[in-house]
Amino acid sequence: MSPSVAPATAALRNVATRLRINSVRSTTRAGSGHPSTCASAADIVAVLFLGEMRYDPQDPRRVDNDRFILSKGHAAPLLYAAWAEVGIVSREATLTLRELTSDLEGHPTPRLPWVDLATGSLGQGLAAGVGCALNARRIGSDYRTYVLMGDGEMAEGSVWEAAQSGQFHKLDSLCAIIDLNGLGQSRETQFGHDTETVAARWRAFGWHAIVVDGHDVDAVQAAFAEGRATKGQPTVLVARTEKGKGISVMEGKPGWHGKPLSAEQADGAVAELEAQLVPEDGGGCPAIPAPSGVVARPDPAAPGAIEPPSYKKGELVATREAYGTGLAKLGVADARVVALDADVKNSTFTDRFEKVAPERFYQAFIAEQVMVGMSMGLAARGAIPFSTTFAAFLTRAADFVRMAGISGVNAKFAGSHCGVSIGEDGGSQMALEDLAMFRAVPDCAVLYPCDAVSAEKLVVEAAAHKGMAYIRTSRPKTPVTYDASEAFPVGGSKVLRSSASDVLTIATAGVTVFEALKAAETVAGEGIHVRVIDLYSVKPVDAATLTTAGRETTLVLTVEDHYSAGGIGDAVCEVLAPLGMRVERVAVPAVPRSGTPEELMDINGLSARALAETIRRLVSSR
Amino acid sequence: MSPSVAPATAALRNVATRLRINSVRSTTRAGSGHPSTCASAADIVAVLFLGEMRYDPQDPRRVDNDRFILSKGHAAPLLYAAWAEVGIVSREATLTLRELTSDLEGHPTPRLPWVDLATGSLGQGLAAGVGCALNARRIGSDYRTYVLMGDGEMAEGSVWEAAQSGQFHKLDSLCAIIDLNGLGQSRETQFGHDTETVAARWRAFGWHAIVVDGHDVDAVQAAFAEGRATKGQPTVLVARTEKGKGISVMEGKPGWHGKPLSAEQADGAVAELEAQLVPEDGGGCPAIPAPSGVVARPDPAAPGAIEPPSYKKGELVATREAYGTGLAKLGVADARVVALDADVKNSTFTDRFEKVAPERFYQAFIAEQVMVGMSMGLAARGAIPFSTTFAAFLTRAADFVRMAGISGVNAKFAGSHCGVSIGEDGGSQMALEDLAMFRAVPDCAVLYPCDAVSAEKLVVEAAAHKGMAYIRTSRPKTPVTYDASEAFPVGGSKVLRSSASDVLTIATAGVTVFEALKAAETVAGEGIHVRVIDLYSVKPVDAATLTTAGRETTLVLTVEDHYSAGGIGDAVCEVLAPLGMRVERVAVPAVPRSGTPEELMDINGLSARALAETIRRLVSSR
Repeated sequence: MSPSVAPATAALRNVATRLRINSVRSTTRAGSGHPSTCASAADIVAVLFLGEMRYDPQDPRRVDNDRFILSKGHAAPLLYAAWAEVGIVSREATLTLRELTSDLEGHPTPRLPWVDLATGSLGQGLAAGVGCALNARRIGSDYRTYVLMGDGEMAEGSVWEAAQSGQFHKLDSLCAIIDLNGLGQSRETQFGHDTETVAARWRAFGWHAIVVDGHDVDAVQAAFAEGRATKGQPTVLVARTEKGKGISVMEGKPGWHGKPLSAEQADGAVAELEAQLVPEDGGGCPAIPAPSGVVARPDPAAPGAIEPPSYKKGELVATREAYGTGLAKLGVADARVVALDADVKNSTFTDRFEKVAPERFYQAFIAEQVMVGMSMGLAARGAIPFSTTFAAFLTRAADFVRMAGISGVNAKFAGSHCGVSIGEDGGSQMALEDLAMFRAVPDCAVLYPCDAVSAEKLVVEAAAHKGMAYIRTSRPKTPVTYDASEAFPVGGSKVLRSSASDVLTIATAGVTVFEALKAAETVAGEGIHVRVIDLYSVKPVDAATLTTAGRETTLVLTVEDHYSAGGIGDAVCEVLAPLGMRVERVAVPAVPRSGTPEELMDINGLSARALAETIRRLVSSR
Repeated sequence: MSPSVAPATAALRNVATRLRINSVRSTTRAGSGHPSTCASAADIVAVLFLGEMRYDPQDPRRVDNDRFILSKGHAAPLLYAAWAEVGIVSREATLTLRELTSDLEGHPTPRLPWVDLATGSLGQGLAAGVGCALNARRIGSDYRTYVLMGDGEMAEGSVWEAAQSGQFHKLDSLCAIIDLNGLGQSRETQFGHDTETVAARWRAFGWHAIVVDGHDVDAVQAAFAEGRATKGQPTVLVARTEKGKGISVMEGKPGWHGKPLSAEQADGAVAELEAQLVPEDGGGCPAIPAPSGVVARPDPAAPGAIEPPSYKKGELVATREAYGTGLAKLGVADARVVALDADVKNSTFTDRFEKVAPERFYQAFIAEQVMVGMSMGLAARGAIPFSTTFAAFLTRAADFVRMAGISGVNAKFAGSHCGVSIGEDGGSQMALEDLAMFRAVPDCAVLYPCDAVSAEKLVVEAAAHKGMAYIRTSRPKTPVTYDASEAFPVGGSKVLRSSASDVLTIATAGVTVFEALKAAETVAGEGIHVRVIDLYSVKPVDAATLTTAGRETTLVLTVEDHYSAGGIGDAVCEVLAPLGMRVERVAVPAVPRSGTPEELMDINGLSARALAETIRRLVSSR
């Protein structure tokens, strides 16, 4: 031990060593995991949890706690070890890593109260951190947000989307740390230990970049202090480290990604690490700083009164426009509601929200991943975010949506311009797989209004729904059909046309509701009676109404402006196929092209004319 | 007119003016489209098509033509106008813009022989350009690749993934042009006309950046020449422009994104533009340079002999490993086959391909969007690319996959580590929606082998399949089941267990095939006879075999290590529900957690034990 080691320095170094020991022990016991990546970041995490971050270790839910996001989620054992160090979990509990009955999973999830968001898909943490930092501004708190990233994940474009959002929003409460250990999973990273090239990239994106030795706890402390003092821009620590630091069998060596030590190797590594413990001379770690307690604008517990829809029956209004109107009304009534845009606010009508609540309107520019990632961070901290763009472009953020589902965050999504009914812009702008994407998220409500009243009402329902919700809106204007007093509960449907002599039920939603009604009217003149159900809640789907209709009419036809895979047809079959009921479907059969909405609806079988033909064919062939 | 205008300069300026006129005319006639963004890039496109690019206007398929990718696809009318200028289409044809019967769609698609890839989802063109440039190296051609981007799309992280790939691969044949007009759709872009800040970002990513006045055809020509002379790194022109240039009603003004002029406004604009035409003094444009004709390694028309699988029956081999083996064998047999990795080659076993064909193995690091984007560019130019990563992380590239589907490119994808059967790593690493994603791509084959033989065979089938194909592989080892001589055609299935007294059919694929077989064996001892079908081709699905099984056994149970939405259950219902057959399903019901593979299979209903219980319940309740 060097005699120049100050007491706090020695204590922090020992914390880091204990974090390494704990990470080795827990991964060896689990038989899988990432001790080498835990070892590289141990000094940084020691400094963060014992000195830098202000938080109450007794109260994970305090809204003004500093936030920590482990973007390199595979270093989970290091995080759990840090919690053990400050008494959040017991040391014994950390040895249940990756067991079925333990919430200490292979990658962190919000099953643990200290975790805001699930990580493990690399490159997502910083975008969520931007959202957490925006939330501090929203509620008037001075909490800071720290995001620990691997160097390999800097290759993800989403990191640079987050970097530019951090710059644009001047988030000086945000601090990223790059654990630059130089080794990816299968090879060295693109830049290895070239700290200056990495720092230059961050500076080009407007960040205050500090190059630091990630194993020097004093230098890391000083860098964090410099970050705290930096105003008007976020800070990044480019921390040079060694993968497997302190464990000679793996330190700086390739081939150790995601590999635990054998029991024998682990004993050797622990002995080696224990020998690195230094006398502390009674100094110990500094006390964990308490949060400031400042929250200028705490969240309300519930929304205020929401202005009801005000349309005339039959009036032509696009659901995308009514969505914007409804979102603005909700924004007035509930300070928790925020809106995020990807530079299409004048097409999705979220500019109406911006007009009434500009301070809660966040511009992501054309960067859907950070839009969704920001919304995840905001949702994790109490906001109710609505991320809106063309539905086709929400697929850009599919992995973020997937991870949002794993986190179970209270985030809402809306996609406009769905289906071939957008017309001339052509296939690249038509969402034909958005229902498939959102239906595949457990517990995500999937809502698809056909008129302005239901669109406004479903905005309110989505906000009230606990967890994720998706609203699909359309470009064409459709007639206002429902009374303003009508309720649209998640999981419901509306039978719009029905008689005792119905021989077929059409289950549909959105623009095709009106084509179905027209087709039903046409064939009624030929003595064929058809029931029409507005399946505005695609998920959960109204199994009771569908089952009754299936029983009474014996044939169900699903109709959707979406590809067949993953949409309304699949949702209905999931309910009716176990009952052996017959379900036919009409969906967009192939990659579409440019044309007028009317032409495209017709050649894809979705027009009233085409549907009437399909009804006749199905009924006559029975 | 200034007397200092050189003849070629005057001619190019007039070309640009005519491109603007044509763009105004075609969008006004269509009643929709983006004349303002066409106007900003007209001078750049004039220089590119009449002087800079080497190509044969008579032969769009020449492999050594320089490539042009219009990443800002909404400027399609400008591209069509350029084609009219060089005689590729007629001027009259450009006036059919966006009509149903015209291939001149709202955004370019490969329905047009000069278009490599569909664009219109911003931020994808440069990744495809990286693939086109890699292809030049692959076939030994000196063709250059030009990608015209908007400034708004620089916000997409995928652009920075492409930038780093361009740097990593030292692609000096690649030239990007940023049309820096400063205006996005709904507002000014983040950096407006700040050319130096934009150029600094590109320099930080290792590109040779040239700031240029995008309306000065001489300066643009000189910048392209500088790009051609730059070795070892790609070039980007940061071209300062005005949106709506030359049309006073819209030049540099917000609110004109995506808006055509009225007929009257268009007449005025055309008159204004015509007044900008300058005398050419007989000089005219330079001749279009011809391609060099150099192609050192032209592609074979077909693969050579492929080494067959060599396993012992019952041997335990993971399908992900057999996939790697099969891909390496295919790589030896077919020089068109290339492999792309996102730093997981040692988990997906694509390192076996790298060993036998390192020059056709492309590392994308942890950047799935550019991996897929590069593969699209390579596929468009004759390669047969296999992009492989964990299936969960292919969702990161969902919008690229969507656009690949619109392009109908011959690109192949493989996702490993599907489902809860990966075990301890937890939900973030488990693909449970990948079948939904790929089934939603029209004409994409979706293949899901259960053993090593079928895995190897399906690699060959995927390569031979015309268009997109996806192969889903698993982490656990499974017993080799099939003979090396067995054929696995796309659209087929294998009945693995069958008798005349079967009362239920299990349709499944992958690891659950073996659980189903064990469950069937168990209940057979109780007198319940169950058919088991290996549905290795999830799409197209084997409707004939399923229908026969459904008729003969009257009850079909689908089983999948995937969420219910969009997977095997949906695929089977799509075929059997129109016949009114009863289909039950077992799928992963909720967000999973860490645990052993065996535990997770069991609690999610997928183990032999759980399946036997489900079979008993279904059969007894009939």
